Amino acid sequence: MKAVEWLGDALRIIDQTLLPHTLKYIDIRDYPDVAEAIKTLRVRGAPAIGIAAAYGIALGAQRIAAADRSEFLSEYETIAELFSQSRPTAVNLFHAIERMGQVLEKQHTMDSMKSALIDEAKSIHEEEEIATKRLSEYGASLIGENFTILTHCNAGPLATAGYGTALGVIIEAHRQGKRIQVFVDETRPLLQGARLTAWELMKEHIPATLITDSMAGYFLSRGRINCVIVGADRIAANGDTANKIGTYSLAVLAHENAVPFYVAAPLSTVDTKIESGSDIPIEERKPDEVTTIAGHRIAPDGAVAANPAFDVTPHRYIHAIITEKGIIRKPYNFT
Amino acid sequence: MKAVEWLGDALRIIDQTLLPHTLKYIDIRDYPDVAEAIKTLRVRGAPAIGIAAAYGIALGAQRIAAADRSEFLSEYETIAELFSQSRPTAVNLFHAIERMGQVLEKQHTMDSMKSALIDEAKSIHEEEEIATKRLSEYGASLIGENFTILTHCNAGPLATAGYGTALGVIIEAHRQGKRIQVFVDETRPLLQGARLTAWELMKEHIPATLITDSMAGYFLSRGRINCVIVGADRIAANGDTANKIGTYSLAVLAHENAVPFYVAAPLSTVDTKIESGSDIPIEERKPDEVTTIAGHRIAPDGAVAANPAFDVTPHRYIHAIITEKGIIRKPYNFT
Repeated sequence: MKAVEWLGDALRIIDQTLLPHTLKYIDIRDYPDVAEAIKTLRVRGAPAIGIAAAYGIALGAQRIAAADRSEFLSEYETIAELFSQSRPTAVNLFHAIERMGQVLEKQHTMDSMKSALIDEAKSIHEEEEIATKRLSEYGASLIGENFTILTHCNAGPLATAGYGTALGVIIEAHRQGKRIQVFVDETRPLLQGARLTAWELMKEHIPATLITDSMAGYFLSRGRINCVIVGADRIAANGDTANKIGTYSLAVLAHENAVPFYVAAPLSTVDTKIESGSDIPIEERKPDEVTTIAGHRIAPDGAVAANPAFDVTPHRYIHAIITEKGIIRKPYNFT
Repeated sequence: MKAVEWLGDALRIIDQTLLPHTLKYIDIRDYPDVAEAIKTLRVRGAPAIGIAAAYGIALGAQRIAAADRSEFLSEYETIAELFSQSRPTAVNLFHAIERMGQVLEKQHTMDSMKSALIDEAKSIHEEEEIATKRLSEYGASLIGENFTILTHCNAGPLATAGYGTALGVIIEAHRQGKRIQVFVDETRPLLQGARLTAWELMKEHIPATLITDSMAGYFLSRGRINCVIVGADRIAANGDTANKIGTYSLAVLAHENAVPFYVAAPLSTVDTKIESGSDIPIEERKPDEVTTIAGHRIAPDGAVAANPAFDVTPHRYIHAIITEKGIIRKPYNFT
């Protein structure tokens, strides 16, 4: 199973909106469809978004029929801009766009630019695969025998097009033979925990218990959880971490109950240009994701809903950030 | 609109499981159907459960055809026992059953016992109506002009067969002319916030914004909430409060962000026999309430889920408990 796969002339993704009931692959040939797949969360998770965007840009660039380099670059900008408008919070997207742009600086012919873009997208993908495997190995050292781990949203192979971040750590600990179990927040509104994390854990034969987001505090307060691990969409220079809405609440509840709270993310998720979490843009998505579940309206007609997709966890609640360069602790310094 | 209404020979309730899409009344003539309606949450909310159980017991008692008082009491015990098995957490249920039983001690004929039971059920209903109105008036004094109030689950007229507790306070503040708005936690798994509280607020023309339970922390941390008010299912002698799962998390998040957290409940919800919250029994409901929403399965087949229906908020997180005898503050003393 590969969340994102480059086919040479197309990008193959799993439509994650259809999981767990349907495992459907889509082959995308037109770059705007890649951007649309990112927007609609067919492909999601900060590392996977970056990888898909890189391939999407490479895909779009192959079709550019420009008279000269400057015309090429101008058409290239249109493509890159579409991706930069797709989702605002995950910084991996912007890092990928930046890297793709830098590649062009060293190339002088149309052909070399096109093939260099494909190579760069592949590099981004491979580097993320290696980074997520490595950080999972570092993170597994934090998981003790018989641990019960709480996680939120989905930060597994689907989210990373690699080994996984939070779930990578959990999968690695399990493969090392540790007897562990996982409590999975369902993660409203889009239920990535119930739909994707529960599914990935079942495939790995890791015992998992699904709970509503509102139950996490109950289990934390009763001493049932040994640690909390989540992924990240953007980490500021001071360690403040944007992640799926509900993460901040978990961090506060873990803190109140003296349970360690870990963030697992490749360094591509760190945004050293941003000093603190208050500068991270938070995506506001459509209210019908809240008022409707699987096409069924759960609220009265005309009800107003808010739908911030992420929140920011201040670094003071985070025990450690697990990266491919090792486990980083306060005061956070990523350079 | 009356959540619970005595018709003389039947109990009329709103089937709350069908709201907000269908407003359907059910007339129940057989007492086991009242117990079943409580179990399946057709009628729910601690005060409404107590009232419905009292009427259900009175209804069952009318049909007892006993040869003597002792035979009557034995059959009565079977009826009362069925209700005491319906739901374990809301203490109003047990207080109502206790009061109904005490009535019989003073009556000596079959006819007088039967009519006294109906009278006592009516008294319980009337007293709860008065208590919820009074506590709402006390509570409204805590609501300032332009307040944004966060609430969880449903503690309105539907839940109380009266004026409401948490929502009673909000409705009263609005009727007094205060410009307020409400953030409503959807309250998974059974979505009483999205289905019932949003509906009741819209009927009262009180501006409301529906959020997922995981968003409450986000809005609290951004200074968007002036106070949190919830109802209660059982309050221990020290003020520890059992309420819908997720309440504890809200209380911790409110505390962390220095936002006042209030519990509104009639004194019938206080269980002075229980010293602290750790002695309150927590109902564990079926896992399919978590894995399924409105008949649609949201988790993989075979996924395991937990479903504690309540949690306990330690009294240290509660700024005040709003009762019909006034606003009670720490150290809590209900006698």
